[in-house]
Amino acid sequence: MIPPSHKEILESTALAHVATIGPHGEPQSNPVWFDWDGEFLKFSQTKTRQKYHNVQHDPRIAISLVHPKNPYKYLEIRGIVEKIEGDPDLAFINSMAKKYMGKDKYPGKVKGEERVVIYVRPVHITKMG
Amino acid sequence: MIPPSHKEILESTALAHVATIGPHGEPQSNPVWFDWDGEFLKFSQTKTRQKYHNVQHDPRIAISLVHPKNPYKYLEIRGIVEKIEGDPDLAFINSMAKKYMGKDKYPGKVKGEERVVIYVRPVHITKMG
Repeated sequence: MIPPSHKEILESTALAHVATIGPHGEPQSNPVWFDWDGEFLKFSQTKTRQKYHNVQHDPRIAISLVHPKNPYKYLEIRGIVEKIEGDPDLAFINSMAKKYMGKDKYPGKVKGEERVVIYVRPVHITKMG
Repeated sequence: MIPPSHKEILESTALAHVATIGPHGEPQSNPVWFDWDGEFLKFSQTKTRQKYHNVQHDPRIAISLVHPKNPYKYLEIRGIVEKIEGDPDLAFINSMAKKYMGKDKYPGKVKGEERVVIYVRPVHITKMG
């Protein structure tokens, strides 16, 4: 489903700008670290964040990613949040810290916060470049 | 309304990731060139693009922008499309080509396409960094 010409964006350290639907049907957007496993685009979230509640209420999501070295090459992935899993040992957020910061452990942990992994299944792709 | 600490993002050549609501209430997102005039965040659109139809149907919009030199600094601007103006002489899209490409004329013009300028009034700001 991902065009071969744009796979390298999903293998890069681009930020994923994730748009969800808020409680009143309004769009919300923010950048996140992501992982692509060939089937799902995954990102970490804390249970206190609005985005976590948004995707439980409406699993439709849109993600735009720009090639880090070529601003004229981008992907929009529209998809569905298919599952949300716990990250109790922080394996996922630590892997994101490794990818984006080169650190073994995520340094931004807040005591008591619970992290989850959001799994997005792509449904429709738009590309440029 | 824009925090002084984050104004430089709006003065930079960051891309603005613009989330709108599609015809079935779903989120859509893609990166655009933008201008900030102190009151409105503005971007160009052709009349054939889905986003143009989206904001006429539902003017609520969310825009996320990351500092080009500091990926830990970003803004989310939630706002309303307050007006849409024509760009018959391409003054606006040409000014965007100047800002982002250093060119006097936008080189991507497609014969016959009509361009407009979308004016977004910020309503709510979220920031990180």
